[in-house]
Amino acid sequence: MAIAASALSGRVRKRVVILGGGFGGLHAAMGLAKLPVEVTLVDRRNHHTFQPLLYQVALAVLSPADIAQPIRSILRNQKNVEVLMDEAMSFDLETKQIHLKTGARLEYDYLVVATGSTHSYFGKDEWAKLAPGLKTVEDATEIRRRVLLAFELAERQMLESGSHPPLNFVIIGGGPTGVELAGAISDIARLYMAKDFRHIDPSEAQVMILDGSPKILGVYPEDLQAKARKQLEALGVILRTNAHVSDVQPGYVMVGEERIDAVVTLWAAGVQASPLGKLLGGETDRRGCVLVDEFLNPPGHPEIFICGDLAHVMQDGKQVPGVAQPAMQMGDFAAARIGRLIGASRGSEGTGQNKGFRYWDKGDMATIGRSAAVANIQWPFKAHWSGFPAWAAWLLVHIFFLIGFQNRFSVFWSWAWTYVGERDGVRLITGSQELPGWVNEEQPAGEPVTKPLDIGSPVSN
Amino acid sequence: MAIAASALSGRVRKRVVILGGGFGGLHAAMGLAKLPVEVTLVDRRNHHTFQPLLYQVALAVLSPADIAQPIRSILRNQKNVEVLMDEAMSFDLETKQIHLKTGARLEYDYLVVATGSTHSYFGKDEWAKLAPGLKTVEDATEIRRRVLLAFELAERQMLESGSHPPLNFVIIGGGPTGVELAGAISDIARLYMAKDFRHIDPSEAQVMILDGSPKILGVYPEDLQAKARKQLEALGVILRTNAHVSDVQPGYVMVGEERIDAVVTLWAAGVQASPLGKLLGGETDRRGCVLVDEFLNPPGHPEIFICGDLAHVMQDGKQVPGVAQPAMQMGDFAAARIGRLIGASRGSEGTGQNKGFRYWDKGDMATIGRSAAVANIQWPFKAHWSGFPAWAAWLLVHIFFLIGFQNRFSVFWSWAWTYVGERDGVRLITGSQELPGWVNEEQPAGEPVTKPLDIGSPVSN
Repeated sequence: MAIAASALSGRVRKRVVILGGGFGGLHAAMGLAKLPVEVTLVDRRNHHTFQPLLYQVALAVLSPADIAQPIRSILRNQKNVEVLMDEAMSFDLETKQIHLKTGARLEYDYLVVATGSTHSYFGKDEWAKLAPGLKTVEDATEIRRRVLLAFELAERQMLESGSHPPLNFVIIGGGPTGVELAGAISDIARLYMAKDFRHIDPSEAQVMILDGSPKILGVYPEDLQAKARKQLEALGVILRTNAHVSDVQPGYVMVGEERIDAVVTLWAAGVQASPLGKLLGGETDRRGCVLVDEFLNPPGHPEIFICGDLAHVMQDGKQVPGVAQPAMQMGDFAAARIGRLIGASRGSEGTGQNKGFRYWDKGDMATIGRSAAVANIQWPFKAHWSGFPAWAAWLLVHIFFLIGFQNRFSVFWSWAWTYVGERDGVRLITGSQELPGWVNEEQPAGEPVTKPLDIGSPVSN
Repeated sequence: MAIAASALSGRVRKRVVILGGGFGGLHAAMGLAKLPVEVTLVDRRNHHTFQPLLYQVALAVLSPADIAQPIRSILRNQKNVEVLMDEAMSFDLETKQIHLKTGARLEYDYLVVATGSTHSYFGKDEWAKLAPGLKTVEDATEIRRRVLLAFELAERQMLESGSHPPLNFVIIGGGPTGVELAGAISDIARLYMAKDFRHIDPSEAQVMILDGSPKILGVYPEDLQAKARKQLEALGVILRTNAHVSDVQPGYVMVGEERIDAVVTLWAAGVQASPLGKLLGGETDRRGCVLVDEFLNPPGHPEIFICGDLAHVMQDGKQVPGVAQPAMQMGDFAAARIGRLIGASRGSEGTGQNKGFRYWDKGDMATIGRSAAVANIQWPFKAHWSGFPAWAAWLLVHIFFLIGFQNRFSVFWSWAWTYVGERDGVRLITGSQELPGWVNEEQPAGEPVTKPLDIGSPVSN
């Protein structure tokens, strides 16, 4: 067997290229650690992002460095991996080559494509600037910037004119991300910012979730949906289901003919797969995910594995969801399968990675503010939890899965401080210090308010 | 006395406007805490930055949130202060009004101007993009981005063509900032990145300081200059004094007729005062600093105080330096002086704030890499320290002066981890993931390297 021979020689080891350093790509790389292969992991960013906690960066609880870590550092001690900061642009599937953005080509024997997904604005790309989504560290700091600036603007308007437009935060999309953002904004406004302003009352901020479907958290069982709804309403979040957003404009959102004012609009509605999926020759679904067989291969390419959000995997009549756990498991599977194909893995025919991929669903969780959550637990026992127990479970699981001891410590510490209400160091507005023009719409730019400010009497108030 | 009467009424309290939330402005605000005045602090940013540690953010040791804190949070419990995120554009000194960028006007009885300084490129503003300076959190993340990307680019070039241009980092300016940046880059390259790359040797990076004067750290005594020089040379830093930079170009710097290649060029050479200084009617020095009298007032305006970098204060024939300590002391002085002017401060004529401002110099320190420094100690005893003792002293002083217990803890923790060599979470490249075009000069963009990569054999190497 040619493969076994090459595995012995050391020099002509099989080359595995992994595209993407998210959960899928990273797990594939780590799964290949002990195999006689040479691995190149390509990502256009230098860091892995722990996406389940990204909303906490957006809402000023954690710092980017708490949840992101350089891919090089994570894989530092794995000698058969090298990391390349670049971007795949196209494939030559015949000669097994990848064309990179910088112009170079990369050869592979096995290819793992785990380039994930990004926001989909359903063809309305002009909405992207008005309603940012949450996929990257930069997205998170942009959302943070907008939310914090909205309060600053209101304070200034209060000083200048004695009134300010209502602090409406509109979140489009009622899935886990939308719910987590809503809970976190409500927390910030009610708990952490209340004492910081002299003229506005941050707790008057109004958070609204708009979802086009009849329910929020549609992937959860109905009893947990109801509990989530109750917990959100207890935080003052307004839930509008069956609400089809027809337009997003500076300062407002249209739902049918109704105008809903919004100082900040956030997008948590749709995702689309990485465009690389369409270049792999196989079929893709309407979001661009690649239809794969039981081995995560697109048809006719047993050497190519699709992992994570980019893979369209059906199991028991349902599509495996595009979240962290399945991505990790797919990465693990791809690595094990490659081991088998090169004849390096233990186990005889008919066992282990001759079986197809099967997602082991341990459950889902979504937090709702500072001390509530819903948890649809599948393992080690089945249960539906909500409220504080669900939140505590969420906390433990996320601390556990964070990469790196130091991050865990830092995140735990930040959470503890946030919980006692003393954390405010990450409430930084970076990037443009200008308030977005679209927030300011009511006041034509350049027309100065010339009356002297009555700055009031903060002491005697 | 009208002032005393107003101080009693509560409603017609004197209005103090403070421009700038740096060390000067913040100390002025805090010094006014117990006085019967209404304070408005205006800053165009929402956060105070602990500038002495900014270089550690630039070189990926600390996170922005470790050294920056929202001004609102710092002053949260001081009820006579309000914070306004805006920017002063001009003054009406007759009617005592400030025109803000958003068009509003702000009235004052007393005005503290502490808007600091920014980089000066000596009229060559086109150099700013090529050689960023270090004044803000955004500057720091931009420097971090460039330094880290330079290593990524070299690794990629090595893969593509088997060679890369030398990793030369050129720092223009040999003052404390230049020295601290140089030491930190050297540390990163030698200690922390060495294991992260497979093809390049990060420790081959070459750091160079260019200074136009005959010496580096010119403000320090000569024995400490010599020691700093030795410590820098031990880190492999090349020091070039009497080196007048005549041009900064993409990929290189000209010193006279000599071309010095640089993958990254940083600016630590000159500063210029905030442009507001020139609008205050008085005389300014060549950097735009306002010449003030012993009470920090510009001539003819006892109600205006200039604090921090913006003030040109002479003491014992020398100009008080533009660093943190004098700024804090000037802020304290201005607050006390205002208390005296409104008749609210304790103490009789001829004592306390009837005396002019006097800078109490406790000494200066600059770190040189991970465990060395120079310290010119003036208080509580006079001493010249260098090496590890100076570094330990630096560490204690900076931990002590950081605002907020949580920051202190987090910074201390990060330092401890960095010291043992395990810290890498902040080595994030955010913002553009593109390598700056000017680094890539040698390879015309758009011309693909079409030969397949020899990705080498990382295992057997």
